[in-house]
Amino acid sequence: MSITTPAGFRAAGVAAGLKASGGPDVALVVNDGPDQVAAAVLTTNRVQAAPVLWTRQVVGDGVVSAVVLNSGGANACTGPEGFADTHRSAEHAAQSLGISAADVVVCSTGLIGERLNMPALLGGIDAAAGALSGDGGTDAAHAVMTTDTVAKEAVVHRRSGEATWSVGGMAKGAGMLAPALATMLSVLTTDAAVDPADADAALRAATRVTFDRVDSDGCMSTNDTVVLLASGASGAAVSREELTDAVTAVCGDLARQLVADAEGASHDIAVTVSGATGEDAALAVARAVTRSNLVKAAIFGNDPNWGRILAAAGTVPEDVAPFDPHAVDVTVNGVTVCRNGAGEGREVVALVDLAASREVRIDVDLHAGDAAATVWTNDLTHDYVHENSAYSS
Amino acid sequence: MSITTPAGFRAAGVAAGLKASGGPDVALVVNDGPDQVAAAVLTTNRVQAAPVLWTRQVVGDGVVSAVVLNSGGANACTGPEGFADTHRSAEHAAQSLGISAADVVVCSTGLIGERLNMPALLGGIDAAAGALSGDGGTDAAHAVMTTDTVAKEAVVHRRSGEATWSVGGMAKGAGMLAPALATMLSVLTTDAAVDPADADAALRAATRVTFDRVDSDGCMSTNDTVVLLASGASGAAVSREELTDAVTAVCGDLARQLVADAEGASHDIAVTVSGATGEDAALAVARAVTRSNLVKAAIFGNDPNWGRILAAAGTVPEDVAPFDPHAVDVTVNGVTVCRNGAGEGREVVALVDLAASREVRIDVDLHAGDAAATVWTNDLTHDYVHENSAYSS
Repeated sequence: MSITTPAGFRAAGVAAGLKASGGPDVALVVNDGPDQVAAAVLTTNRVQAAPVLWTRQVVGDGVVSAVVLNSGGANACTGPEGFADTHRSAEHAAQSLGISAADVVVCSTGLIGERLNMPALLGGIDAAAGALSGDGGTDAAHAVMTTDTVAKEAVVHRRSGEATWSVGGMAKGAGMLAPALATMLSVLTTDAAVDPADADAALRAATRVTFDRVDSDGCMSTNDTVVLLASGASGAAVSREELTDAVTAVCGDLARQLVADAEGASHDIAVTVSGATGEDAALAVARAVTRSNLVKAAIFGNDPNWGRILAAAGTVPEDVAPFDPHAVDVTVNGVTVCRNGAGEGREVVALVDLAASREVRIDVDLHAGDAAATVWTNDLTHDYVHENSAYSS
Repeated sequence: MSITTPAGFRAAGVAAGLKASGGPDVALVVNDGPDQVAAAVLTTNRVQAAPVLWTRQVVGDGVVSAVVLNSGGANACTGPEGFADTHRSAEHAAQSLGISAADVVVCSTGLIGERLNMPALLGGIDAAAGALSGDGGTDAAHAVMTTDTVAKEAVVHRRSGEATWSVGGMAKGAGMLAPALATMLSVLTTDAAVDPADADAALRAATRVTFDRVDSDGCMSTNDTVVLLASGASGAAVSREELTDAVTAVCGDLARQLVADAEGASHDIAVTVSGATGEDAALAVARAVTRSNLVKAAIFGNDPNWGRILAAAGTVPEDVAPFDPHAVDVTVNGVTVCRNGAGEGREVVALVDLAASREVRIDVDLHAGDAAATVWTNDLTHDYVHENSAYSS
């Protein structure tokens, strides 16, 4: 049930002293092959951390042998010196492993704007290299946690003809969760035999409908990195479609775990917009609703305040999402509280039970077409404010 | 110091029973002329309350004789019946005043999605008509308050040649404050003699740089209405430029009061982006920063977390705001904590004192041009979450 479940991978997670807590903070993932195919999706924020700039170069040729990850510092907004630190981490890992630094991806997470404690990090890389094991996936998953309360892992097993293969994944991220991507690091592994173009296409298709549709707090990160490593060790040659399906399943599972562990949240909210003229239109309306602090605060108060939902939908420009505000229905946890843009009355609203479960479903039917999309978010809580005002991250 | 300071206006505010609190909730403002010139700026939300739809029609000819305002209900998302209610309010006020309903603007604020208590509202209109007075401006300002803790009023006096004239204003709004416009109702009065085209141009120019640059919580309302009434009673014929300047001063004063009274806020934050290639680019970056929950929560915690500020700036697409992330400086309350996209260190950050005053200044210099813009917002606090989860608005 980890990134070392697929054949051909070793991993480790160790405590190197980067985190004040003394918890595990350096992870290493190695692809022992026979293939070392890789793809990555990186943050679209224009302010990009040093490890993101480095990783973009490394992944360019579709070959990655190892991934170094650290929590306890994002190494973002650290200038040329920060980039040199990332380079040095990759060189150090490469030496330990007898590989090329040009094949070592680096991921960092934690506070923005401060240099990493390099002696600690380099020591941690050595320790992790010594601890690498075919059972080390879960240790690695723990070492990337920041404000996460649980490690996030997922695995799917598949069969192609006679051969069986699998995809494993781990992710971290509990705040600054927004599309493209959620503030997150994720490493995915597979023992399928695939070429770099298929790996890239599968990863992009998967993240587009999973991580990119998590918008916990609307804040896009500087460090988001999702890396897919393929070892080919199962001997199963799989198609782009098969790979996409399996990677999407793992990413979807991990994305749901990120929402469930979002900082301070008490509700996970699925906003589904249907009846849109196109998927982009549905997404635009769903994102407007998931970014409304007033909607999110109302859900925290177990108040199915559909007026705020409709008001959020109304902020999307008409050329982006054509619909008639007087035709919109809003349904909360299965109860249609607004029809044709007008309320169904207090008695109907009172039928909505938000306190019963953590998961809340908001459905908005635009009655303008037949496209739909779902975006996940969380409620806005006292604990969110507390964690993000008291914890400098 | 109210909307009845300019000559030619009477106003009143009464308690009609729309608010559960029993406080004043119906206001009436009458322009006794000789001119009855008017202009209005209305919400750009596509979900528009009945009074907004009505007011757009009334103001079309540039003539308005009276404004009816109520708190205790937004009359938004109430269907054709809600529009009929607005129409009936205007008819009722017109009859009381001996004027045409087609010259009566209606404004409502409060909970979305419920019909108004019409017997109470019509009774309130009668009572307000009976109470109209040349000193009634402040009573009217109190009657439009919802979660506002104080009434907001402003006046400027001007001289043109031998004649003196003034502009008075009142506003309400404490949540759902976002551009185009903040969730607000505002009535502005002037005894200057102006034509409708000048009134419209002055009001649009003024709101663009005042109310439109307040973004307390990113949530655009369904009811926002700003109305300017000109009586000509001073006899001063003023130019478009003179009027724009005076109306901008009053709107700017009222906008600052809205920020100072925003729901649950403990800091007022001025985000100024300079060095932009154009005003739109500066605005786009400023709005991205003011909408970051992570930035706003950090300020609540008195944490000058410039990494979150830079990360928010980085979410603006390059074609909207061209700049080099490695050239950006961030200054908080006068202390430059980030230069050329990299941190100046903990010792410098420690010099920033956010606890000393309610007002916080964040300056972002993009070093890409010479345009600048300022947007005001508030911090994200426990009290904001409390008010907006416990209070169905």
